[in-house]
Amino acid sequence: MSAVYSGVFPIAPTPFHPDGGLDLTSAERLFAHYAAIGSDGLTVLGIMGEAPKLEPNESIAMLKVAVKAMAGKPIIVGVSAPGFAAMRSLAREAMEAGAAAVMIAPPSHLRTDDSIVGYYADAVAAIGADVPFVIQDYPLVTSVQMTPGVIRRIVTDNPSCVMLKAEDWPGLEKISTLRRWQADGSVRPLSIMTANGGLFLDFEMERGADGSNTGYAFPEMLIEVVAHAKARRRDAAHDLFDAHLPLLRYEQQPGVGLAVRKYVMMRRGLIACDAQRKPGGSLSATARAEIDYLLGRLARTDPRASL
Amino acid sequence: MSAVYSGVFPIAPTPFHPDGGLDLTSAERLFAHYAAIGSDGLTVLGIMGEAPKLEPNESIAMLKVAVKAMAGKPIIVGVSAPGFAAMRSLAREAMEAGAAAVMIAPPSHLRTDDSIVGYYADAVAAIGADVPFVIQDYPLVTSVQMTPGVIRRIVTDNPSCVMLKAEDWPGLEKISTLRRWQADGSVRPLSIMTANGGLFLDFEMERGADGSNTGYAFPEMLIEVVAHAKARRRDAAHDLFDAHLPLLRYEQQPGVGLAVRKYVMMRRGLIACDAQRKPGGSLSATARAEIDYLLGRLARTDPRASL
Amino acid sequence: MSAVYSGVFPIAPTPFHPDGGLDLTSAERLFAHYAAIGSDGLTVLGIMGEAPKLEPNESIAMLKVAVKAMAGKPIIVGVSAPGFAAMRSLAREAMEAGAAAVMIAPPSHLRTDDSIVGYYADAVAAIGADVPFVIQDYPLVTSVQMTPGVIRRIVTDNPSCVMLKAEDWPGLEKISTLRRWQADGSVRPLSIMTANGGLFLDFEMERGADGSNTGYAFPEMLIEVVAHAKARRRDAAHDLFDAHLPLLRYEQQPGVGLAVRKYVMMRRGLIACDAQRKPGGSLSATARAEIDYLLGRLARTDPRASL
Amino acid sequence: MSAVYSGVFPIAPTPFHPDGGLDLTSAERLFAHYAAIGSDGLTVLGIMGEAPKLEPNESIAMLKVAVKAMAGKPIIVGVSAPGFAAMRSLAREAMEAGAAAVMIAPPSHLRTDDSIVGYYADAVAAIGADVPFVIQDYPLVTSVQMTPGVIRRIVTDNPSCVMLKAEDWPGLEKISTLRRWQADGSVRPLSIMTANGGLFLDFEMERGADGSNTGYAFPEMLIEVVAHAKARRRDAAHDLFDAHLPLLRYEQQPGVGLAVRKYVMMRRGLIACDAQRKPGGSLSATARAEIDYLLGRLARTDPRASL
Repeated sequence: MSAVYSGVFPIAPTPFHPDGGLDLTSAERLFAHYAAIGSDGLTVLGIMGEAPKLEPNESIAMLKVAVKAMAGKPIIVGVSAPGFAAMRSLAREAMEAGAAAVMIAPPSHLRTDDSIVGYYADAVAAIGADVPFVIQDYPLVTSVQMTPGVIRRIVTDNPSCVMLKAEDWPGLEKISTLRRWQADGSVRPLSIMTANGGLFLDFEMERGADGSNTGYAFPEMLIEVVAHAKARRRDAAHDLFDAHLPLLRYEQQPGVGLAVRKYVMMRRGLIACDAQRKPGGSLSATARAEIDYLLGRLARTDPRASL
Repeated sequence: MSAVYSGVFPIAPTPFHPDGGLDLTSAERLFAHYAAIGSDGLTVLGIMGEAPKLEPNESIAMLKVAVKAMAGKPIIVGVSAPGFAAMRSLAREAMEAGAAAVMIAPPSHLRTDDSIVGYYADAVAAIGADVPFVIQDYPLVTSVQMTPGVIRRIVTDNPSCVMLKAEDWPGLEKISTLRRWQADGSVRPLSIMTANGGLFLDFEMERGADGSNTGYAFPEMLIEVVAHAKARRRDAAHDLFDAHLPLLRYEQQPGVGLAVRKYVMMRRGLIACDAQRKPGGSLSATARAEIDYLLGRLARTDPRASL
Repeated sequence: MSAVYSGVFPIAPTPFHPDGGLDLTSAERLFAHYAAIGSDGLTVLGIMGEAPKLEPNESIAMLKVAVKAMAGKPIIVGVSAPGFAAMRSLAREAMEAGAAAVMIAPPSHLRTDDSIVGYYADAVAAIGADVPFVIQDYPLVTSVQMTPGVIRRIVTDNPSCVMLKAEDWPGLEKISTLRRWQADGSVRPLSIMTANGGLFLDFEMERGADGSNTGYAFPEMLIEVVAHAKARRRDAAHDLFDAHLPLLRYEQQPGVGLAVRKYVMMRRGLIACDAQRKPGGSLSATARAEIDYLLGRLARTDPRASL
Repeated sequence: MSAVYSGVFPIAPTPFHPDGGLDLTSAERLFAHYAAIGSDGLTVLGIMGEAPKLEPNESIAMLKVAVKAMAGKPIIVGVSAPGFAAMRSLAREAMEAGAAAVMIAPPSHLRTDDSIVGYYADAVAAIGADVPFVIQDYPLVTSVQMTPGVIRRIVTDNPSCVMLKAEDWPGLEKISTLRRWQADGSVRPLSIMTANGGLFLDFEMERGADGSNTGYAFPEMLIEVVAHAKARRRDAAHDLFDAHLPLLRYEQQPGVGLAVRKYVMMRRGLIACDAQRKPGGSLSATARAEIDYLLGRLARTDPRASL
């Protein structure tokens, strides 16, 4: 089974100054860190990258920093938009600025299987069949439910589909089904990278995922778990994953999760400030103390959490 | 009860050539027609104006045609967007290009009263408190339900709120409640113009609406019904409205309604072509024949439908 | 094309006394009226029959009155329930009490095509493959969207499926598609009766519907429109339909529509009281006056509205 | 702060035989286990108790087994229903059979603050103001979002409201807000027990929860974590919680979670069979092996997981 993308592509947050201005210096530092720890690629301007809060020129500026920092590693750019005009513009500009592929989530009003398949056909017609794209399957956020059969139809209909970002919940059986279909030839080889905050990364790798395409304040953990899994060091993968799970679970909360991630990244020195543009979640003093407590507990086994 | 906006502000469709190109010549002809029949204003780039399918420069081009054609009458511009960055950009550019106000619909994930009120506070912070704005209350499309109390909170919190585009369904009691509150001083005077395809325009005027802010292939009917209602010619208003109701009902179908509207406008010679950009509804031959039949029936009492 | 059910099966409301008690005397009078005007069948305990507000013994009492009054004509009973245990109990009791078929709407959480098809398979397993059932396709209320292909799968998988209650909106093309498939043999003959308040009954009959299965305060109109359509008296069908459309539209409002229907039926003397059990819509004095005005206008062409 | 209910009230699953018959022998054994380990009460017939799949007589049979096994400890009974008739019947029968209180979740169509408050008012009118009731706040399943202010209104309006089952996600700040309001006197004392699979039990107790009202295959862990938290043994609470978190997370998956719970309970010998009635999730062989692996890892620190 060959797959185009593999390993860990962190979902990058977008750093802001306290006044809401784009903090490109922090972005450079953060992206350099992603590169230094061995990330295999990067996704920018996704849901957790606060993409809809950026002006078009800011989006491209972020992308260019990423392209430069990752030095040839693939950059995936989120281009989900309420209309195909904006999607096409952003996709075209992103590819010109050095992106390797774009990521498209379905709009929340889609219900029937045919309407989902049709949407991706229209999206490909809009961005061009030469632009590689990633399906984002994230029902918790989009309300759109894709069966494995629908994913197969999209993959089969569109040669430019290069990856599934798998963040259904539960999602383990979906990975197994797609891999079984790939094995029996009923779907072509497809890169599957998992997300949903990494909550099931341990078992997703065992089910056949190619890697992780999610955010977490310690992307090093994602990289090491994926490496352990690929080397079939099962217990080592779970030991490391389980040590991080209490914090990872805290960071995976809807809405407030990005505030947790940015707070820890700020404490790690990866970004200067944990500010979000509106509308954004914020942390109470109690929540920050809870995170500090979790970091202290994690530091007993992972010194990187000793901040 | 004073109200800033009153009368009929048609919701303008966006005309395209058969190949999907923007048809500004048709836009000029259509907008000149709106002006000639006595429209009191115009709304462009709304949901039925296929706004998300336009490039930013196309949106501004449409707006400029409208501003010129309407010669000083107010133009309202839809600026709903998934993020405040795009909303701010479009609002700023629209005001510079001559718009009188912008229209904002709430995003579909909003649920609690506080989250809706907070959304409009954030939107006003984004576009600037000096930009007049219209609340679009359209639960059938947005899934967001605003009680009269929530509308009152938004109106009271934001002096720049100048109008409610009322298209809840059912919506008659909501208009009565707001007008009763206005009469007893618990909410400041507010322009209320109704929409939802005009399906209840006859009674909405009697409940206290200031006018109509919807699309329909015969905006003349909207103008005359509103005029009859304001002059308290009740039977005349209903007679005209009822004559159009079979066609109006056909045009008000979700999804396919815009195709009906554009088809009739094309048959009327107001636009050259009824094409929509993707994703768009289309009419079967049977549907077109049904509309032709309805036009024929309508022409018995309204010669404008004799095409 | 043979169809099991055809003509008009009114959706019966459930009459209550002012104190909320079940008014079986009014039910007898109302059902006798349905029989006297030539209804071809009847549906009881549907969404508009306030079924979830009835105790099990009250439901069966209502059904027995209907069976007796309709004297051999088929009675369809709504058995939608949050669990298969209640559905099975009610279906079994209904068939024992003389029902001809049961009606099942899908629960609102269903999204994918397979989940809808699977739900009906489970429902048939629960109620028994010997119990004829009707698919209720009403996305405005259920949020579940069934493509024609999904309906075909349910019809093909389940020989006990005898009818589609078609109340999608828009729904005309869905009827045409199913009839085209029936003509080319790709789906077996299926009774299609339409609903959604009757808002498109005029054209639904022309598209191939077998009849009407909806409520309206003047079921005589439904019967006559269906008869005109079957006799291909097109103009006569539309003339009568259009005369009623202003009131029908008023009665088709979500939530408050049942209050309108019961009010008119009370004014007609068909039921003693327009009370609903909680939670129920109610009419303001203004709304009642609006209905009276619409009745007065209708009475100019249909003397049955002269109350 | 006094609270009526405190400690741990497990959410009990309903055991079935392989053929789907109710397994009251397993229920007796399971409930005896709940009593033996020191549960402070029990909830039966909730969402995870497969309540909608039970016949009314089966529901009451389950309840009677629970009442007997728990010997005077309070039993809460889920009575959520699509209509108030069924809710009233079940509530009345449950109280007669020895229940201490009933639990009511809001129906999924509720949107505005007022509609939620109004629903609980109607529910109390239906079941009687003398029947103690629990608010179930579970937006992930119900789609209904209640702000702290809405909960305060329900609590204040209805003296018979005795508890909040808090399973919003995220939910920590909601607990803090309600406790702050209780401290400043703006809401009366209220029992708050948390759920959502226990995913945040560690911090919920620190935020002021009175205990846990959720299911988990090792209710002993819930009891011990709550005891540690009440005794302010913070590290001990987290140590035990974290050891279980990998399995707890696996059991908390939507849809399939109940299958996980029943499988582990079957392996523990608490129930004879892990069957569910339709529609129910099931486990693949791979999933069962994953659970076995998690149990093996857990057994290293908690011998109860050595099966």
